[in-house]
Amino acid sequence: MRLATFTEKTAENSQFRLGLVDGGSLIDLSNNAPSLPKDMISLLNAGDSALQAAADAATGNAPQYSLDDVRLGPPVTNPGKILAIGLNYADHVKETGRDLPKHQIWFNKQRNCVNGPFDPINLPKVSTDFLDYEGELCFVIGRRCKHVPAERAHEVIAGFCVGNDVSVRDWQRRVPTMQIGKSFDSHGPMGPWLTTSDEVGDPHNLEIKTWVNGDLRQHSNTKHMIFNCYEQIAHLTQVFTLDVGDVIFTGTPDGVGHAMTPPGLLKVGDVVRIEIEKLGAIENTVVPEQAEMVI
Amino acid sequence: MRLATFTEKTAENSQFRLGLVDGGSLIDLSNNAPSLPKDMISLLNAGDSALQAAADAATGNAPQYSLDDVRLGPPVTNPGKILAIGLNYADHVKETGRDLPKHQIWFNKQRNCVNGPFDPINLPKVSTDFLDYEGELCFVIGRRCKHVPAERAHEVIAGFCVGNDVSVRDWQRRVPTMQIGKSFDSHGPMGPWLTTSDEVGDPHNLEIKTWVNGDLRQHSNTKHMIFNCYEQIAHLTQVFTLDVGDVIFTGTPDGVGHAMTPPGLLKVGDVVRIEIEKLGAIENTVVPEQAEMVI
Repeated sequence: MRLATFTEKTAENSQFRLGLVDGGSLIDLSNNAPSLPKDMISLLNAGDSALQAAADAATGNAPQYSLDDVRLGPPVTNPGKILAIGLNYADHVKETGRDLPKHQIWFNKQRNCVNGPFDPINLPKVSTDFLDYEGELCFVIGRRCKHVPAERAHEVIAGFCVGNDVSVRDWQRRVPTMQIGKSFDSHGPMGPWLTTSDEVGDPHNLEIKTWVNGDLRQHSNTKHMIFNCYEQIAHLTQVFTLDVGDVIFTGTPDGVGHAMTPPGLLKVGDVVRIEIEKLGAIENTVVPEQAEMVI
Repeated sequence: MRLATFTEKTAENSQFRLGLVDGGSLIDLSNNAPSLPKDMISLLNAGDSALQAAADAATGNAPQYSLDDVRLGPPVTNPGKILAIGLNYADHVKETGRDLPKHQIWFNKQRNCVNGPFDPINLPKVSTDFLDYEGELCFVIGRRCKHVPAERAHEVIAGFCVGNDVSVRDWQRRVPTMQIGKSFDSHGPMGPWLTTSDEVGDPHNLEIKTWVNGDLRQHSNTKHMIFNCYEQIAHLTQVFTLDVGDVIFTGTPDGVGHAMTPPGLLKVGDVVRIEIEKLGAIENTVVPEQAEMVI
């Protein structure tokens, strides 16, 4: 099942609704299954019977929309937390000139960075020359959990999507903790939808590719992760609770812009496309930040 | 004004309500001002008129509770995000053997670590010998904001409280990003209540003290911060939006356990008390983690 959030293109500020993607079409769950919860976290919290009811809404119903006619939102519009692992593909570790990590290296992306699969990415006013992409497999937590052993970790994953761990390299690298450079508003595009775990099968054998303006920059497979998704869950839940809707970015392969010679960093107008086997693609264009004071 | 969350001691699992602290007494806002929002973030979002209505609820009403008869909760029970600055007092930087930071060093504490001012702190099952305290001034964001200059930053602070940035030193130090060692469930005690900014005055001239089992371990003043609260807000909001209810931990002075000779780390039964001038004190006892699998 492919669960999306969407709104009509003509009503850009309206609330995102839940939809079911079927080929190039979309079924509006608020119409076809009106008794279901209205946002992704509530739907996942409602458990297997609610997910089955969502799947059933496709049966015998004509889709209301072509995907071309809607604006897709991030699969989870308001995750409680977003965690991201650094240096988790050996080829990427090599291109950064570092040693292979002995321990999982985690940082947070602020929840404010959540962005839609086709929405613009800001070139920050405070850093115009160090914007970079990182194509990543993301997963979304489907069951509140703690102390989950790796061999049961698949049970707590609701599904997977594509993510771009957009990074501002000067802000990232001038401090050891990385994460402020990973947390600019708009720097967490995700999507195009949540593909549920049953439809993905083994998440550790998926091709992942990133293009900038049509040039292939990253091409790897999730089997090359150093710490796989299940080991990540086991590690994190020794420490804290994962909640339904939490999003995990699982690391990027080699081919990021700042490691290229000369560097292939992003500028206004650049288009970043990231595609993962079975999950679809996201595509985001760089725009100048409208940096206005809000108080 | 001193805004607390509380529940009756005899009903430990009931929902926290909002209260107004007046000396050693507490006024139940759900009773005396029933039209006000029921949780701290909603109250702060409702703005100055709602805060004035809360203050007015004390006038001419006898308090319903003695503070001795309630269980206080964290001032914000569900912050959207918690950010903490590292190495922000020169004496603390010196005791860690590091150089003074040129840039603000930030990490997140996961929102799951939120804990009440008198609730127990877990000694983690996965790290029994490296538990440490860090007494800190915390502030809570009262207005959604972005790109706030330091000279206007005081406008977005709703108020202040005492916090303990509980740290698990082995998990913290084995990776550069620190933060998983800062994020164990229960490792963010805060309180005893939110003292609103008007009552605090200058937040950069407050005595701060930490005791362990009655021994004074930390004794400093918030005037010794390297980057003050307003510079912190200016820095963070260049990058992302701060939301109402977000909590900022502003760094700890010298005197932490792992820097002592021999180390003064925490064990089961230890009582950590942190007091800040004008804000009150929090006191938390270390207990063994009940490490059960939750799926």
